[in-house]
Amino acid sequence: MPDAPLGVALIGTGFMGKCHAMAWRNVAAVFGGAHHRLEILCDTPVDKAEAFAAQFGFARASSDWQAAVSDPCVDVVSITAPNGLHRPMAEAALAAGKHVWLEKPMALTLDDARAMAALAAEHPRQVTILGYNYLRSPAFQSARGLIAAGEIGIPHAFRGVYDEDYCADPDLPWTWRMTHAAGGLGALGDLGCHLVSHMVALMGPVAELTAMTHIAIPERPSPEGPRKVENEDSAMALLRFASGAHGSFATSRVARGRKCRLQWEVHGAEGSIVFDQENMNELWVHRRGEAGFKRHLTGPDQPDFAPFCPAPGHNFGFNEQKVIEARDLLVAIAGGMNAGPDFAAGLEIERIIHAMASSQGAAVTLGGDF
Amino acid sequence: MPDAPLGVALIGTGFMGKCHAMAWRNVAAVFGGAHHRLEILCDTPVDKAEAFAAQFGFARASSDWQAAVSDPCVDVVSITAPNGLHRPMAEAALAAGKHVWLEKPMALTLDDARAMAALAAEHPRQVTILGYNYLRSPAFQSARGLIAAGEIGIPHAFRGVYDEDYCADPDLPWTWRMTHAAGGLGALGDLGCHLVSHMVALMGPVAELTAMTHIAIPERPSPEGPRKVENEDSAMALLRFASGAHGSFATSRVARGRKCRLQWEVHGAEGSIVFDQENMNELWVHRRGEAGFKRHLTGPDQPDFAPFCPAPGHNFGFNEQKVIEARDLLVAIAGGMNAGPDFAAGLEIERIIHAMASSQGAAVTLGGDF
Amino acid sequence: MPDAPLGVALIGTGFMGKCHAMAWRNVAAVFGGAHHRLEILCDTPVDKAEAFAAQFGFARASSDWQAAVSDPCVDVVSITAPNGLHRPMAEAALAAGKHVWLEKPMALTLDDARAMAALAAEHPRQVTILGYNYLRSPAFQSARGLIAAGEIGIPHAFRGVYDEDYCADPDLPWTWRMTHAAGGLGALGDLGCHLVSHMVALMGPVAELTAMTHIAIPERPSPEGPRKVENEDSAMALLRFASGAHGSFATSRVARGRKCRLQWEVHGAEGSIVFDQENMNELWVHRRGEAGFKRHLTGPDQPDFAPFCPAPGHNFGFNEQKVIEARDLLVAIAGGMNAGPDFAAGLEIERIIHAMASSQGAAVTLGGDF
Amino acid sequence: MPDAPLGVALIGTGFMGKCHAMAWRNVAAVFGGAHHRLEILCDTPVDKAEAFAAQFGFARASSDWQAAVSDPCVDVVSITAPNGLHRPMAEAALAAGKHVWLEKPMALTLDDARAMAALAAEHPRQVTILGYNYLRSPAFQSARGLIAAGEIGIPHAFRGVYDEDYCADPDLPWTWRMTHAAGGLGALGDLGCHLVSHMVALMGPVAELTAMTHIAIPERPSPEGPRKVENEDSAMALLRFASGAHGSFATSRVARGRKCRLQWEVHGAEGSIVFDQENMNELWVHRRGEAGFKRHLTGPDQPDFAPFCPAPGHNFGFNEQKVIEARDLLVAIAGGMNAGPDFAAGLEIERIIHAMASSQGAAVTLGGDF
Repeated sequence: MPDAPLGVALIGTGFMGKCHAMAWRNVAAVFGGAHHRLEILCDTPVDKAEAFAAQFGFARASSDWQAAVSDPCVDVVSITAPNGLHRPMAEAALAAGKHVWLEKPMALTLDDARAMAALAAEHPRQVTILGYNYLRSPAFQSARGLIAAGEIGIPHAFRGVYDEDYCADPDLPWTWRMTHAAGGLGALGDLGCHLVSHMVALMGPVAELTAMTHIAIPERPSPEGPRKVENEDSAMALLRFASGAHGSFATSRVARGRKCRLQWEVHGAEGSIVFDQENMNELWVHRRGEAGFKRHLTGPDQPDFAPFCPAPGHNFGFNEQKVIEARDLLVAIAGGMNAGPDFAAGLEIERIIHAMASSQGAAVTLGGDF
Repeated sequence: MPDAPLGVALIGTGFMGKCHAMAWRNVAAVFGGAHHRLEILCDTPVDKAEAFAAQFGFARASSDWQAAVSDPCVDVVSITAPNGLHRPMAEAALAAGKHVWLEKPMALTLDDARAMAALAAEHPRQVTILGYNYLRSPAFQSARGLIAAGEIGIPHAFRGVYDEDYCADPDLPWTWRMTHAAGGLGALGDLGCHLVSHMVALMGPVAELTAMTHIAIPERPSPEGPRKVENEDSAMALLRFASGAHGSFATSRVARGRKCRLQWEVHGAEGSIVFDQENMNELWVHRRGEAGFKRHLTGPDQPDFAPFCPAPGHNFGFNEQKVIEARDLLVAIAGGMNAGPDFAAGLEIERIIHAMASSQGAAVTLGGDF
Repeated sequence: MPDAPLGVALIGTGFMGKCHAMAWRNVAAVFGGAHHRLEILCDTPVDKAEAFAAQFGFARASSDWQAAVSDPCVDVVSITAPNGLHRPMAEAALAAGKHVWLEKPMALTLDDARAMAALAAEHPRQVTILGYNYLRSPAFQSARGLIAAGEIGIPHAFRGVYDEDYCADPDLPWTWRMTHAAGGLGALGDLGCHLVSHMVALMGPVAELTAMTHIAIPERPSPEGPRKVENEDSAMALLRFASGAHGSFATSRVARGRKCRLQWEVHGAEGSIVFDQENMNELWVHRRGEAGFKRHLTGPDQPDFAPFCPAPGHNFGFNEQKVIEARDLLVAIAGGMNAGPDFAAGLEIERIIHAMASSQGAAVTLGGDF
Repeated sequence: MPDAPLGVALIGTGFMGKCHAMAWRNVAAVFGGAHHRLEILCDTPVDKAEAFAAQFGFARASSDWQAAVSDPCVDVVSITAPNGLHRPMAEAALAAGKHVWLEKPMALTLDDARAMAALAAEHPRQVTILGYNYLRSPAFQSARGLIAAGEIGIPHAFRGVYDEDYCADPDLPWTWRMTHAAGGLGALGDLGCHLVSHMVALMGPVAELTAMTHIAIPERPSPEGPRKVENEDSAMALLRFASGAHGSFATSRVARGRKCRLQWEVHGAEGSIVFDQENMNELWVHRRGEAGFKRHLTGPDQPDFAPFCPAPGHNFGFNEQKVIEARDLLVAIAGGMNAGPDFAAGLEIERIIHAMASSQGAAVTLGGDF
């Protein structure tokens, strides 16, 4: 970590842009350490950038992301622009010697992700971290720790879903997000990659998978009449992990009534753990010999909760996950371990979701490169 | 239905035997109609049969099932003997002109099930019904009715699991139930067939599936030392239904902490329905435009609850499902519709679970015979 | 217990009448022992009695309850008639030397209950038991046992409610049940007495209480125009137990959305227990040092479940509580302990609910007679 | 609102101090508007104040709160110091012309609260607001709005509890917080006042109440040997509201397993609403004619959620309540409505909890001053 406070550039002011901004504003207050210079807020048009720079407390505004990512006052770049811009922005930032905090999914295509990971490998002193915020919640970290510590024995099965319903309405208009070229994958890219991030963190590498995808609403209205949806509304997969365990996986953007149901369970020889992001402050743990599942409310006995609140049962929030993510980034910049996923680990996630997208019911081996 | 009360023979006095006995004792009291003659209780050895005949209120006891199923005083036979005896008993009963109420799974092998269905087809005036009791609960019937009535629109996705943990303990001794020859399928035969019964009732026929099976505990202790487990501890599948919908499916007998988690959800264009047999008196329904899922407690507004209790929220029990099953059988014997599954429909369930058992990750088409 | 099977008379064929009938039909099948002679079914008019005698399997029908309760073939009388008839029927049955199984509430007035308890005391060889079925569920018995065994330490606080909504609709017509003279107490008599039965079983005797009652819907429609509701729609109380613990209590028949919410929690020095009859197969237990509450699904590890089902998580039903109640009665008739409440214990429950009804916000001491 | 950004002084750096700091850092970023000058961080000793000033981003540190509250650069004072200092600090800030954001409970004694409210009334152009953060959550605001809009009809009953277990361990050492002189009320002051804030917001003024208090653990260890606990571990009350509705109320700091169970339900003529702060992102609503309660997950359809997150089901956090509280303060300073509670409304809350503390089972009328 440089002696002077880090200079931050933030690109994008949407859902995730604001989330990054709040994280940047609070990470030092929560965890201690130097406050960062909120240097450049980048969006288009420039007056929008200026308005948000004022709102989020950035020193400058810009509509020129190339200039921003190579600005000498900037040490780290938060990229929350549309997915199609992830690659050029991340590559430019890396080339300019910056650390990169990039929203998921990493890129539109697997080739893009490969190229980005390769470039990051050439810049080993620059930190890359992807916005898999659901990895940061105290309950998830606790679950991961319990499994790693052998508390439920060797895991032999995983069951996971990530369902939302933001595309469930057939009247929802067609957008470019529903095309391969501009939107990349569908539910797999939006939601499935988060579930993969949890799955791999809990179960280790995937050896093989078979998947099916489905487009529940094949056409959607547009001003020019009905247009075809190209990417998947939902996907399902069976998996074998390198450990020998097996698993099932499903994700949907058309699951009516589900809002953030990133839900999974792991069965081990000595117990089970169940989690649902819609109730992200509850972890359900069963241990051999006990009568049922225990509801473990999030509290200071779980990782990273205490700096936010000393009292258990006082709910941790979605946005606070991002504060932990910022802290993870800063630890890595300071020379500590990168909690990740960095671009290399992010590529593994991309390989899995693209394998699911292309499986069409056939088994795909993930051991080697493809 | 014959004018005289039906004479009943019950074979077996275990978990399901007692469950049938309670159903036979209460079905007329609950639903009205003639009481049945509880004619012969059949088990081995004969003194056990005699003790249970006294307990369950049967007129006679016998250790000779062949004699029992062909006894002229018997009109209907409840078969709850071990799975390997299902075929010979059912065939003998059919040959003797009796109606048959047979516990699931239908048979050890698909060939057995085919032969049984063929024989039943030759006896169209005799009713066959399989013990898929989870189809009978008021909540399930309500769910099925809501879907059939289009309340959630056209279903496009199914997610189902049936998990228990009765084999989760590695110290559990090896038994013949864990062999193909004597036990047939593992989790698929014990649990998975129930989930298939729900799935098919909700989603219609399966067109294609891909499945993987897993043996989590490959060897178990026996007096002669460790012995190999042959049938699956768990299975997972992806499915395409004839309707075009798709689904995921998983079942396990080694899912620590799960006791009767027959849980599924159906996503439709206009809503979703979620059910879990561990809370069999709750049905969760979401409809487009509403804020979330509604908890519908079982009550007299659901099918078949009112004859048991006029008050909602007064829990329906597992055993009472079997009373409805007996009623379904009696309706069919009286010439009404057979709510099923009869042996023909049961064969379809067997085809699905055997396809899952043999898929090994390859797609299996279910449209034709195999 | 007489050598010959007990002869049973059942008075009433409504909700509880049918429930008693099902219990009488199944108690021996479930628990073993001699089957009872279902001797006389009593209701008015006689053709209704005849129809139900046939349905429930009773040998004879009668519309003359006086004759029925003194019939020499009858050993035990199930009384499920309207509350105003409880006293004369129970007194006649006791006078005729019969055992009495009486539905709650015991009587319309406290004076009636006192007289009944006094008469029962004069017939110590005849068993009296009241229909507090919610005391019988495996989960409740388990909770009671855990507390008695000191598993949560000394209880210091009780919180209980019993809410339903069967009178929540203002359009519900006025009935005689809403008068003091014919209906007795309102929510306290229908629901509150059940909650008292739980509370006393868990916490011991009540020393003092203060209560308020409320009539939410003061007038209801009748053919003669709006009529006044006399008894309480809801009641709330604060209590001090003889043990020194304290508690809160509330009951309502106008709590929209609640169907059978008999819900309570007990806080002890070493843990807490939480129960809700709407999910009567779940018991929630927290012990000091553990992270949260554990969901204990009903199973054969809880009292009286195994004879119904060997498998945990296979839901116990409301009606099955009554089978256990019948067994409790039979054990007492056979000379075993009376699990109760007998008329003496029932009088204590009546004293508490009548004290609540009359408190009007003033403290009432329950130590002595009143 | 002054043209220049407001200058903020924050007193205290504990649980609530940090919570205020995070709110001050994010309120403008979330809701827009000018950023505030974080002017003075006040705590003792001064090096602690300096460390926290750096961490929270305040310009200056001080150990002299009198100087801080009268500093000309300060416009608004956040007071999070121990309860015994609330009165002198608030009075000094008001006297110095500052706006006051004061943590609850308002003061140690009712006399103190009266004096503070009187002083605030003399400074009508200065805003006072109390830290009743649980009033701010989107789910609570939504509930309050539904009731105010008549969605559940006229409320006739309230049931509320607020339980935690932070004092449940008998080994927890004695502290000055357990004395009347230094700690004020016990559970009522820590927790009960929050429940009162909800209750009054939902049900309107309290007309009359009867309460009991309880000390479950009368002595606690101290270095000088066991010392007496003076203030209540728990309290329970019955209430009549000015509206005619009635209610029950209970709070405990010794309820094992409860962490932040601020739970209540309101029964209305047309529906019911249920809330539990431990699951603060769920609101349960039942409406007449519907089958059960609907789980409404927090989302942008509820007040004040959208500025934090555009996506439903993405959990709102405890700390974010405080950001809304800061916004409420700023709106009032800018001349808008004070969402409150201001000191006048806070005094009403104090009157209720002190009435509960002193009732000892006798009815207390709250209509007039006492």
